[in-house]
Amino acid sequence: MKLKPIELNGRVRLRDRDAQPPRGVPADEELKARTDRLVERLDELQSALFAEHERALLVVFQARDAGGKDGVIRKVFGPLNSSGVSVASFNAPTEDELDHDYLWRIHAAAPRRGTIGIFNRSHYEDVLVVRVNELVPPKVWKKRFEQINQFERMLAESGTTIVKFFLHVSREEQKQRFLERLDDPTKNWKFNPGDLEARNRWDEYDQAYAEAISRCSTPWAPWYVVPADSKKVRDYLVARVVVDTLRRMKPRFPAPDPELLAWRDKIV
Amino acid sequence: MKLKPIELNGRVRLRDRDAQPPRGVPADEELKARTDRLVERLDELQSALFAEHERALLVVFQARDAGGKDGVIRKVFGPLNSSGVSVASFNAPTEDELDHDYLWRIHAAAPRRGTIGIFNRSHYEDVLVVRVNELVPPKVWKKRFEQINQFERMLAESGTTIVKFFLHVSREEQKQRFLERLDDPTKNWKFNPGDLEARNRWDEYDQAYAEAISRCSTPWAPWYVVPADSKKVRDYLVARVVVDTLRRMKPRFPAPDPELLAWRDKIV
Repeated sequence: MKLKPIELNGRVRLRDRDAQPPRGVPADEELKARTDRLVERLDELQSALFAEHERALLVVFQARDAGGKDGVIRKVFGPLNSSGVSVASFNAPTEDELDHDYLWRIHAAAPRRGTIGIFNRSHYEDVLVVRVNELVPPKVWKKRFEQINQFERMLAESGTTIVKFFLHVSREEQKQRFLERLDDPTKNWKFNPGDLEARNRWDEYDQAYAEAISRCSTPWAPWYVVPADSKKVRDYLVARVVVDTLRRMKPRFPAPDPELLAWRDKIV
Repeated sequence: MKLKPIELNGRVRLRDRDAQPPRGVPADEELKARTDRLVERLDELQSALFAEHERALLVVFQARDAGGKDGVIRKVFGPLNSSGVSVASFNAPTEDELDHDYLWRIHAAAPRRGTIGIFNRSHYEDVLVVRVNELVPPKVWKKRFEQINQFERMLAESGTTIVKFFLHVSREEQKQRFLERLDDPTKNWKFNPGDLEARNRWDEYDQAYAEAISRCSTPWAPWYVVPADSKKVRDYLVARVVVDTLRRMKPRFPAPDPELLAWRDKIV
């Protein structure tokens, strides 16, 4: 059970049933065990990436409200050494950010060499919420797909491997999660009427997500659509892609300094 | 088994035997279970702090090389929701940072309201390594204790609760950890000759740490000396202080919006 990247300009399926676990998915307990093993492997790979200090990995998460971004980040990246992980959340831009181009704040948060950078939302908001709410005219956001592709290509060519995940939840699952939030006094503060507005424009968002994902799933920065109605399936599938991606990067611990053995005797 | 804050201008004991677990410490397994429970409690308290969005918690870690800063941060704060935690590591300052006062980069990394900010090293380096290596003259670093106290007081009065930990490892334990690093090909890249230099100036650092901790353990930003030769004891003691500190802050979930129930019916 493994996700494939979306084909560039290919068809993106965001039907409700595509949010459900794929066929042949193992039972929850087995899935959880597999995810735990993947996270251990990720931990080792991250150490090597950090030690090597040459390249970076950028992991982008997009989702509808209650789509599970916080949850998957905590599960997959929480156990890692925090020195080598940065998480940047992109909410509505500040005045200072609005005084610059839309990629300015994104670029500033790009991960350092040796680290894994996680984007909780990203520059894709500028072709999603910005498009649906008509915050800029179509001739502006339409140019952004190519701008984003070129920006990501520059990052990739400069040593940052990129993977992007859309956590796909169904309309029914979102409803359940909203209701759970409202009924839980430790969670109901998270709810805001804006979330309902976005829900009411479900189909417009569908179209915006599908176009963004399809047009920007490049060989150097592929998009993955994660069936995310089940949290355990979501965590496993994301961990699997991240581990495979890092494995292909083959990060290597630097060769030991020839003087190391000499130092050994100097520790008194 | 609970740490007490160091008394302002009080005596700080950094003898080797003070790095060992205190008397009456439970067995490793029991300690680990207790730490896990504390981390769960921390998770709940963090949710409330985040929801309340009024105040912040700043946790400062200082230690000698191989003192365990990364380890304790991963163990105690790794499991939390990353949206509400930021970790800032302060290494040797960049040119840009050196063109400003020593608190400039520190201030820029202060945690946002609602979040927990962790400093992996901090402005205390400016009265530690800077002092021992004579990077500035004594009349400069001597003024810093009071400057730091006033800076931290301003933060505290503006809503940021501060706790500071010195992870105290003994000379023998550091030696063991250095040797382990050198013998492990996934870790020996971490070793650099500068670490040995600092080790050779053990007593000078002792004095610098003791003075910094004693002079800057204010009521609004107390220092704790953590016996850190045992990793499990270290994790437990830190988790205990952090949880107690957050508990005293009494973060509260905001009262539910009276319109919440009305929204409930609008989710279609």
